Amino acid sequence: MSDSRFASTPAPPYYAVMFTSIRTADDDGYQRMAGRMTELAAQQPGYLGVESTRGSEGLGITVSYWRDLESISAWKACAEHRIAQETGRRRWYEHYEVRIAKVERAYSSPGTARP
Amino acid sequence: MSDSRFASTPAPPYYAVMFTSIRTADDDGYQRMAGRMTELAAQQPGYLGVESTRGSEGLGITVSYWRDLESISAWKACAEHRIAQETGRRRWYEHYEVRIAKVERAYSSPGTARP
Repeated sequence: MSDSRFASTPAPPYYAVMFTSIRTADDDGYQRMAGRMTELAAQQPGYLGVESTRGSEGLGITVSYWRDLESISAWKACAEHRIAQETGRRRWYEHYEVRIAKVERAYSSPGTARP
Repeated sequence: MSDSRFASTPAPPYYAVMFTSIRTADDDGYQRMAGRMTELAAQQPGYLGVESTRGSEGLGITVSYWRDLESISAWKACAEHRIAQETGRRRWYEHYEVRIAKVERAYSSPGTARP
């Protein structure tokens, strides 16, 4: 299957950044920033893909996948991304958690190719 | 803050199981199973918490947190959970990805306590 909602990641090991968040009511500029960050992340060295969703109860989970910790550090330090992070802290997110993890094993549902 | 949508995880290292899925249209028994698995997982040795959401486009992301790989293996092998996994493969999920990762770093939004 080829479903763009799933990230097409290579065999482990690789890294994941798990960003779990609750938004504020402030929508000003948020959608534009989110779209731009998705686009910009995909251009970074070491970027492997992203999976992202937000449910009706308000919890959002975005997992981006990266080749190594160096790629993650470089993306975190990217100038345009730093502005988005700062504005996010100030305006768009009520609370968030960031977890950086090394993916050691991965498997797909049987009977379906990796998307 | 204390918000049950966030998992109250300890300082790293610990482990995460990332379950990304698209559901089928078959709802028969799904909600009951999902509720029961949430309840049962929380009783397992080494369970640290869960964060879960499903957006309007259908992608669901559930991340459960565990003390170590042994806890994850034991939960995967749990008899009642195995039946749910088997039924899920057969009926409830169109496609899913499972990734097991070691959380190495974690931080919260500034100005808010860990939930």
